Amino acid sequence: MKPTKNFASDNNAGVHPEILKAITEANQAYVPAYGDDPYTERAIAKFREHFGPEVEVFFVFNGTGANVLGLQSLTGSFNAVIAPETAHINCDEAGAPEKFTGCKILTIPSEDGKLKVEQIRPLLHALGNQHHNQPKVVSITQSTELGAVYTPDEIRALADFAHEHGMFLHMDGARLANAAAGLDCRLREISGDAGVDVLSFGGTKNGLMLGEAVVFFKPGLARDFRYIRKQGMQLASKMRFISAQFERLLTGDLWLENAANANRMARLLGTELAKIPGITITQKIEANGVFAVFPRRIIPRVQEKYPFYVWDENGPVVRLMPAFDTTEADVHDFVRVVREAVSEKD
Amino acid sequence: MKPTKNFASDNNAGVHPEILKAITEANQAYVPAYGDDPYTERAIAKFREHFGPEVEVFFVFNGTGANVLGLQSLTGSFNAVIAPETAHINCDEAGAPEKFTGCKILTIPSEDGKLKVEQIRPLLHALGNQHHNQPKVVSITQSTELGAVYTPDEIRALADFAHEHGMFLHMDGARLANAAAGLDCRLREISGDAGVDVLSFGGTKNGLMLGEAVVFFKPGLARDFRYIRKQGMQLASKMRFISAQFERLLTGDLWLENAANANRMARLLGTELAKIPGITITQKIEANGVFAVFPRRIIPRVQEKYPFYVWDENGPVVRLMPAFDTTEADVHDFVRVVREAVSEKD
Amino acid sequence: MKPTKNFASDNNAGVHPEILKAITEANQAYVPAYGDDPYTERAIAKFREHFGPEVEVFFVFNGTGANVLGLQSLTGSFNAVIAPETAHINCDEAGAPEKFTGCKILTIPSEDGKLKVEQIRPLLHALGNQHHNQPKVVSITQSTELGAVYTPDEIRALADFAHEHGMFLHMDGARLANAAAGLDCRLREISGDAGVDVLSFGGTKNGLMLGEAVVFFKPGLARDFRYIRKQGMQLASKMRFISAQFERLLTGDLWLENAANANRMARLLGTELAKIPGITITQKIEANGVFAVFPRRIIPRVQEKYPFYVWDENGPVVRLMPAFDTTEADVHDFVRVVREAVSEKD
Amino acid sequence: MKPTKNFASDNNAGVHPEILKAITEANQAYVPAYGDDPYTERAIAKFREHFGPEVEVFFVFNGTGANVLGLQSLTGSFNAVIAPETAHINCDEAGAPEKFTGCKILTIPSEDGKLKVEQIRPLLHALGNQHHNQPKVVSITQSTELGAVYTPDEIRALADFAHEHGMFLHMDGARLANAAAGLDCRLREISGDAGVDVLSFGGTKNGLMLGEAVVFFKPGLARDFRYIRKQGMQLASKMRFISAQFERLLTGDLWLENAANANRMARLLGTELAKIPGITITQKIEANGVFAVFPRRIIPRVQEKYPFYVWDENGPVVRLMPAFDTTEADVHDFVRVVREAVSEKD
Repeated sequence: MKPTKNFASDNNAGVHPEILKAITEANQAYVPAYGDDPYTERAIAKFREHFGPEVEVFFVFNGTGANVLGLQSLTGSFNAVIAPETAHINCDEAGAPEKFTGCKILTIPSEDGKLKVEQIRPLLHALGNQHHNQPKVVSITQSTELGAVYTPDEIRALADFAHEHGMFLHMDGARLANAAAGLDCRLREISGDAGVDVLSFGGTKNGLMLGEAVVFFKPGLARDFRYIRKQGMQLASKMRFISAQFERLLTGDLWLENAANANRMARLLGTELAKIPGITITQKIEANGVFAVFPRRIIPRVQEKYPFYVWDENGPVVRLMPAFDTTEADVHDFVRVVREAVSEKD
Repeated sequence: MKPTKNFASDNNAGVHPEILKAITEANQAYVPAYGDDPYTERAIAKFREHFGPEVEVFFVFNGTGANVLGLQSLTGSFNAVIAPETAHINCDEAGAPEKFTGCKILTIPSEDGKLKVEQIRPLLHALGNQHHNQPKVVSITQSTELGAVYTPDEIRALADFAHEHGMFLHMDGARLANAAAGLDCRLREISGDAGVDVLSFGGTKNGLMLGEAVVFFKPGLARDFRYIRKQGMQLASKMRFISAQFERLLTGDLWLENAANANRMARLLGTELAKIPGITITQKIEANGVFAVFPRRIIPRVQEKYPFYVWDENGPVVRLMPAFDTTEADVHDFVRVVREAVSEKD
Repeated sequence: MKPTKNFASDNNAGVHPEILKAITEANQAYVPAYGDDPYTERAIAKFREHFGPEVEVFFVFNGTGANVLGLQSLTGSFNAVIAPETAHINCDEAGAPEKFTGCKILTIPSEDGKLKVEQIRPLLHALGNQHHNQPKVVSITQSTELGAVYTPDEIRALADFAHEHGMFLHMDGARLANAAAGLDCRLREISGDAGVDVLSFGGTKNGLMLGEAVVFFKPGLARDFRYIRKQGMQLASKMRFISAQFERLLTGDLWLENAANANRMARLLGTELAKIPGITITQKIEANGVFAVFPRRIIPRVQEKYPFYVWDENGPVVRLMPAFDTTEADVHDFVRVVREAVSEKD
Repeated sequence: MKPTKNFASDNNAGVHPEILKAITEANQAYVPAYGDDPYTERAIAKFREHFGPEVEVFFVFNGTGANVLGLQSLTGSFNAVIAPETAHINCDEAGAPEKFTGCKILTIPSEDGKLKVEQIRPLLHALGNQHHNQPKVVSITQSTELGAVYTPDEIRALADFAHEHGMFLHMDGARLANAAAGLDCRLREISGDAGVDVLSFGGTKNGLMLGEAVVFFKPGLARDFRYIRKQGMQLASKMRFISAQFERLLTGDLWLENAANANRMARLLGTELAKIPGITITQKIEANGVFAVFPRRIIPRVQEKYPFYVWDENGPVVRLMPAFDTTEADVHDFVRVVREAVSEKD
């Protein structure tokens, strides 16, 4: 029998029961469409509790929408966005950032998905040269697509550098909660307080049905965002059903419990896999991503029971992503399947 | 006490209980993200029952997304889309069609939101002239933004004309169900069978939480749509929760019951309002929209209890939109409030 | 024998001999590419003599480039540009403004191609409504596509209105010289001094080989224009050959002589045509455009010798455009041909 | 005294006297605007002599315009263009390709600016994956930005590979004439005959004032190009003055003499510089580009007399580009200045 869960991605999971309950409870009476409703008002208030009273918050449908429209609010089409090669905006958004903003993405190689100031500096030679897109945004992902986490100081260094050169710091926080859980810190410590200007705050990968938020830490930057969102095809008419999810996620510690569970299961998974001969964990496990070299021959056998992605054919490196509802039993069963595949004869 | 419903828009309503139940039931186990899941497969099968076995179907988040990406699949940036002035793509999408497709929208005045062949013909003078956007799509709304409904023959005439001139017929079917209910016909009779090439099929205004479908009646036209959708920021990761809604909507007669109820309530509302001195119904009620001239002085008084939109300051004309769950009691209470406002002294 | 000139358009003419001489004289030695050369420096100095010492000036290839990039410097993609229906940016640029800026063009009907404040006001209802493109620019053409000329006071009224509402006034000055000649005023009196923010100043239609200038009257608006121009594919590498033309055009009264000649020939043409039975001049002749109703039967006969455009099939109205080098003899010969065609039996 | 020529770029040169003469001779009588004139007809006929009778040819203003619009005619916004990192479309067009086509440019590192099939293959993993831009065009530069030249066989291999995978081969031929001169072959042998689908054929760097041509070797690909060009702001109104230049360039051997001279001067320059201690030539000299490591301390001294660009601060590597009118005396004087700078004490 096939297991009912897998480690392919944290978006293969469903919806946290408390979130689903919040959706159900929001299904009462009529409220104005497009965000002018009490659910949205309360959800924004929750964001201000977590990120500071001055933030401006806008809900959109998905992570690509959050990233692209956040970047759009910071750029003209002649600008460039600096990002690691591994960034979701560079690899996994089918060119939406380029199409929608007109900007070029200037990429920097990165082993763990993190950027360093000294890597950015050489790209600034373009500043003032009319033949080149003008760098305007540094975009980082927290936690990264490789499961690494920036400390507040690392973010601050990037923010200071960006600001000194007239640029903004944008954060793709599709898994910001996992980073905060990993660092045991508040969400604002690794975003606005560390100098981030605009944040995509992810919900879908942390137990929501769908919904992401664009958070502006400098309110002036949000001036035109309502228009950008609508033109960007990301304005939900029955917005209350996104807002209600965020309100619940940010009430109590649900956001943290979900993320911490995924992280804990990632660490457990890493520890257990590392015990199996022929398997090597390739990245430090700081959030909920586990990257491991698997013997090539076992991959199809394991995938029969547990779908997952080969991240890099060289290795080959596989990616495993526990989610908010992964259990220790799930991890142990997966490890068992891997162990059996390793010990099988060809 | 304020009523819990209103007539401002069919998107002020919530979610039909059966739809919510389908969402809840889809919240089991892990399934692949981005549409490669059994819910999506079954939902597409349902579309093929209704629209024909050869249709290609793609789910997106909202109506603007469905319209814009459908148009994108039919055009190059040097093309033009011909539409009535009142079209949602022209008036209410904040320029998303122009930004995303690069096309110009050529508009034609219309009293009831419908186009006629003879109105389109003069715009074809641009064909072959390099200084002008080349007309490539005729886009119509069924039922129209003014509550009117095209008959199958009317659609066929437009489709034939479009096809004769190398153009496509696109249909914004945000309220296609209301049109089918109004005509007492099948969905396909007023879309693919009548010559429509690409359809935006609306769910949100007919009881869904969110979700629209782009339906291609000529499969070749859908060739690149998966890429267009992803780049268009309209690919849901946990797509099953959109698909499950559509599966339920198209099972049994739920789509029809919802639409027929809204239409019936619109007719009742029109009939009752017409009895009030000083109120004139300005459009035939063929779907679920009611347009009426209200005495200017009563508008704020009624809006205190029942929010609604003034459609045209000249008149002034107000728009009232019953929804899938509007009841006769709701209509009568609203009419009572209007009647009292009319009879109040200033 | 076919005449060597015609009245189809002022861009069917060649290059003024003095302009060609300036090009030839610029063909000496090597100079830096992309505008960092002494020819460009001197040409900009000439613009500052005419338009004021604080203007920023950039040369581009053609009028569409000048208009589109000027608008781009004033807008985000969520904005709208308000223009008369007859505007070149609306009718004759194949959708370049929409594609490149992402903006929607909101049009206003106009008999003579001019806008009035009271026509613009109703379009401002969109301001602050997230469902609509936000009006940001009023764009006018001086002289208009219908040959009419705005007085300085008319421009000032539009500029004041635009500025009061947070908008800019853009001027398509493809034939600004003709307007200045028609009003007997300086170029700056009907542009920057009257409140225009950004101007497309035309050279091609006034005796240049090619070349248009974007003039910014508020230097801050030009901040990013170098990047916009390069990304907009309008940066000439051997720019000196555009600059040298403008330097010459603006030295002495060449710009004025050219424009005044075209205007004078238009008035003569209008006067002489009006004497012919069955011909009606439909627009006041304030610059170098002549619009006349011609008997339909004569049009092909006259076009055999003198190509010209039918502007409006209703009428039919034809457009005749004398140029910088049209002579009285050219006018009289054309009038003779028309007169003969009128008197011919069918 | 400063020399009147330099080696900074072949676009710092002026116009070849024969080309200027052709412009002057084209300044007669009126002709229709926008390319419907006998000069354009004759210029296209010349292209067909050189490139084959079936080619479709369109003139544009500049190289960025030619590249971007050629790519636009081959792609949808969801596509990707594969190019070497050093490509002009990637480095020197300020993001125009991304903004105008919406495509992503996928880059491949290259020492000499050339691509090889085996480098492209790994990028095809994206084909069919909706999360990634779909590769549709391989774009190469002939001769490359580093002065290297593809042989006909090398081009054929790339073309065959592209076509096998449903892709097109695009060539930026800003210096195609230099490549043909370097290989002593006809222009078509290294473009259409070798499998190139769309070519940007450069004029400006080979003695024209301005003007580039987009050449389609498969006529069907050109179907919409007239509209793309106009919307792309690259349609010249007085087009005869571009066409007349191309007609002359392609008459007799002018194109070849110009290019061959530049190449010969490059070889001479390379030979002479290589004799100077401390100077190393870093690229084979196959066309008219010379790349050399210069001692850092001499660069400003030489630049005082002869402006040129530092191509790579590492080295540092400088780029020197002889042009159509560079003479042996120019080369020897430059070499003398370099030699003196090298031998000067600090």
